[in-house]
Amino acid sequence: MRSTMQGTPLTVASILRHGVEVHGDRRVITATGDGFRRSTYEQVGRRCGQLANALRRLGIAGDDRVATFQWNNQEHLEAYAAVPAMGAVLHTLNIRLSAEQIRFIAGHAEDKAVIVDSSLVPLLARVLPGLDTVKVVLVTGDDGDLAPLEGSGKAVLRYEDVLGAESPEFAWTDADEDAGAAMCYTSGTTGDPKGVVYSHRSLYLHSMAACTGNGLGIAEQDRILPIVPMFHANAWGLPYAALMAGAELLMPDRFMQAAPLARMVHTERPTVAGAVPTIWNDVLLHTDKDSGLDFSSLRLVVCGGSAVPRSLMEAFENRLGVTILQAWGMTETSPMASVARPAVTAGPADAWRMRATQGRPVCGVEMRIVGDDGTPQPRDGQAVGELEVRGPWVTGSYYQVDDDARFHDGWLRTGDVGHISAEGFLTLTDRMKDVIKSGGEWISSVELESALAGHPDVFEAAVIAAPDERWQERPLAAVVLREGAIVSPGELRSWLSDKLPRWWLPERWTFVEEIPRTSVGKFDKKVLRGDYADGRLKVETLE
Amino acid sequence: MRSTMQGTPLTVASILRHGVEVHGDRRVITATGDGFRRSTYEQVGRRCGQLANALRRLGIAGDDRVATFQWNNQEHLEAYAAVPAMGAVLHTLNIRLSAEQIRFIAGHAEDKAVIVDSSLVPLLARVLPGLDTVKVVLVTGDDGDLAPLEGSGKAVLRYEDVLGAESPEFAWTDADEDAGAAMCYTSGTTGDPKGVVYSHRSLYLHSMAACTGNGLGIAEQDRILPIVPMFHANAWGLPYAALMAGAELLMPDRFMQAAPLARMVHTERPTVAGAVPTIWNDVLLHTDKDSGLDFSSLRLVVCGGSAVPRSLMEAFENRLGVTILQAWGMTETSPMASVARPAVTAGPADAWRMRATQGRPVCGVEMRIVGDDGTPQPRDGQAVGELEVRGPWVTGSYYQVDDDARFHDGWLRTGDVGHISAEGFLTLTDRMKDVIKSGGEWISSVELESALAGHPDVFEAAVIAAPDERWQERPLAAVVLREGAIVSPGELRSWLSDKLPRWWLPERWTFVEEIPRTSVGKFDKKVLRGDYADGRLKVETLE
Repeated sequence: MRSTMQGTPLTVASILRHGVEVHGDRRVITATGDGFRRSTYEQVGRRCGQLANALRRLGIAGDDRVATFQWNNQEHLEAYAAVPAMGAVLHTLNIRLSAEQIRFIAGHAEDKAVIVDSSLVPLLARVLPGLDTVKVVLVTGDDGDLAPLEGSGKAVLRYEDVLGAESPEFAWTDADEDAGAAMCYTSGTTGDPKGVVYSHRSLYLHSMAACTGNGLGIAEQDRILPIVPMFHANAWGLPYAALMAGAELLMPDRFMQAAPLARMVHTERPTVAGAVPTIWNDVLLHTDKDSGLDFSSLRLVVCGGSAVPRSLMEAFENRLGVTILQAWGMTETSPMASVARPAVTAGPADAWRMRATQGRPVCGVEMRIVGDDGTPQPRDGQAVGELEVRGPWVTGSYYQVDDDARFHDGWLRTGDVGHISAEGFLTLTDRMKDVIKSGGEWISSVELESALAGHPDVFEAAVIAAPDERWQERPLAAVVLREGAIVSPGELRSWLSDKLPRWWLPERWTFVEEIPRTSVGKFDKKVLRGDYADGRLKVETLE
Repeated sequence: MRSTMQGTPLTVASILRHGVEVHGDRRVITATGDGFRRSTYEQVGRRCGQLANALRRLGIAGDDRVATFQWNNQEHLEAYAAVPAMGAVLHTLNIRLSAEQIRFIAGHAEDKAVIVDSSLVPLLARVLPGLDTVKVVLVTGDDGDLAPLEGSGKAVLRYEDVLGAESPEFAWTDADEDAGAAMCYTSGTTGDPKGVVYSHRSLYLHSMAACTGNGLGIAEQDRILPIVPMFHANAWGLPYAALMAGAELLMPDRFMQAAPLARMVHTERPTVAGAVPTIWNDVLLHTDKDSGLDFSSLRLVVCGGSAVPRSLMEAFENRLGVTILQAWGMTETSPMASVARPAVTAGPADAWRMRATQGRPVCGVEMRIVGDDGTPQPRDGQAVGELEVRGPWVTGSYYQVDDDARFHDGWLRTGDVGHISAEGFLTLTDRMKDVIKSGGEWISSVELESALAGHPDVFEAAVIAAPDERWQERPLAAVVLREGAIVSPGELRSWLSDKLPRWWLPERWTFVEEIPRTSVGKFDKKVLRGDYADGRLKVETLE
């Protein structure tokens, strides 16, 4: 029996239309270094029309890819909305990748045009000649030298000039909701980057999920500060969710250091902000120096990208009165898959325990833990295995790459290892490739790192597997101390001793200036393992 | 370019699975008259499995329709979840319809089974022999006499006996999301009732919309009291939204009078409640008598089904500290289409003005006002015409009936007349068929009724068109006074005189004991017009 419902597709065009028609007076506010510039969604909607007309005139047709090489600002939002809404595909390039990776990714996606921030022109100039498929470059901002882009053989135009010549009216595309709307490449530490193609449907549903009360509860009264870059998994979907809800967007542009961010929170009063733990750690340190800052507008700080140490959450709660909400996801999951809101029925101690996990799946996403033999494991908080996920905003393949090993019976194999409690809370203990297997049992590098980060002298710590004759592998802790702090491995080991099983405690310790990171800011343990193997780390071994 | 996203369908099965797996300890609480019975979603999930196995064993296959003839209670929720999740189609029968209408509807839908509350056995017994397609009747509750159903030629079984014999495990159907999941018939005042078939997709998206911050913001911490019957447009989607969010459900069963409802609010502390204005009017009167009741748990009272008088909203706000949120929709729109949350930027006076409208569309629904010639009208708060809506939870046809006149270029013609303001707020001024056209201009019966309802002596009022020689039509006001009140037509007319245009003020007045209502509780103006035409109303005419 068919339903009688309308077949209205879920599209980015309808998000844009809703934001502009129903919430047209809400604003996008972009940092300029010495102040802010402000536009309403109604104005953004008109500029989206101009951008779409301009791209059409410049030859963008069908599902052509339009790349962005931009900070978090109004113009990036315009590309987010206009490119998919005109039927083309938005491709957010990660400005922090190597030139070689960018060339590979832009070539693999066959990007036809690039929109670039004027401040990023020098960076783009280094790779542009190798971007064979790119025909047109639009440079946002009315300052900046275009000379570095000349001689690349591409048409190089100023974004504002081009938009100024166009009509704000455009007939947005309400096409097939399963068509590609946006792309993002994952930059694993091994192999070529792989592309995920989000559909109109997946972006729409993910935005709705972010607006639900069990998600982030985004609504018109919110003012959202996405610090996570818009070239990382759609800035966790915050820009689309804001447009859908009519929430205001506070855009930090390139002013992403702790001082201007903290100042932006103080003056522009966001209700929700999202960033990786490192940023919040920096912001917390900054508030030690600049204690007059008011963070009371923040009802929620969303934190993800890597495990959030409980000590960081407690410091935010106790010192700033701000709740950090841990969320988990990956590029392949759009990314919001789970959110660590404690169960309503939990007491304070249980609530803290739940908040320190990766959380419960948002409705739409299903999760399971699978053992070595591929069978689903019980939800008992004990059985450890690989996390698999499925749902309408989870990828089922990679763009033009066969990688069947990453999928299992229609579920995505995440490459993460962990367990799920009887209450449904996911705890990730490791990446598959970072697992430490000691005497046949798993040791969680993530839990060791989180416990170490709670020590007052520790800024951060990474734990890797060191080959061991007797146990096959044993943990090695690489620790970054806070400025001026002095502490011994023995003291750190005894700090851990009442928090974790005795046989987990590392014998091998090294103090480093910083932990090597991937282009998306995660610990690069492959580099660390290589440094250790090649004898580049100065390691102390406890008895 | 196809996306790489998984094709995971949006289904009632996935709502059920999520509620049970992620929020299994949240509860459904059903009034028993002298107390409450409580079950967790985990228990409800097991009973859903038993119900599905039982229905399968009793011959329910494919998309067979399973009808319900039930109050708002746990067993009705079980049917809501289990019937669509097993792939069959839930058909909620309106117990307040005439025997003739029920026979027509159940026959048209070809219902195979009926689940009936034991307290409704006598009512069902009157129509059951005529329900030719029905083979099985399941009677919930362990009391009640089944004798009235005997001799009907149907298998009559006790629900609890049948469930008790079954396994709680069932392989739920994650089928085509566009397949029919539930049916509801609209009972217009003219013509045969017409069926709307909700899809899994439409129920899923509607539930998500109810959970968004701009919708009802339903989340795990909520306790939801659906007073609107589950046989009226899915009780506004509250049961599915609660299961999706893990919110608790407080079910009033058949104890729907003001006294037990107010008592339930006091003791069970719902955060959200939904009912038509009449119920809230009754509850308000009741609190005059029983002043010790605590309503402070209610963060939101959702009110719809007919226009909500501002006086009612003000009384709730001022006397009980409770916010009434007006929402608009119809069976054909699942029903939530718009919600009258004031714009965030509005000051207090504007906020009240916005709250007294039918609100702004929730994301997913689009609205437009169309003139007599079919062209969309400007959003200026002035241009009046028929409201048309579209969206993924709006019907695009009726079940096995051709009624093309109700659709226009893919939009549903609502039969409602109104205007949309520049800020996007919809105001409905009339039903098309209840329009009063005086000297070529429209007079809004709804605004006259709302203004009259604000008079301290008026309980409620209905305004209809009376034929008039000079003006073609003039308004006639039928007024129900509060108990013991005495007021003259002249006084009421002068009460209106500073609130509405002078030429709108009725000359014709009648005082009645009650306003005739349709089976779904709306004013039945057709009956009123007939009474007037046939001289059955005692009308006073002012000069």
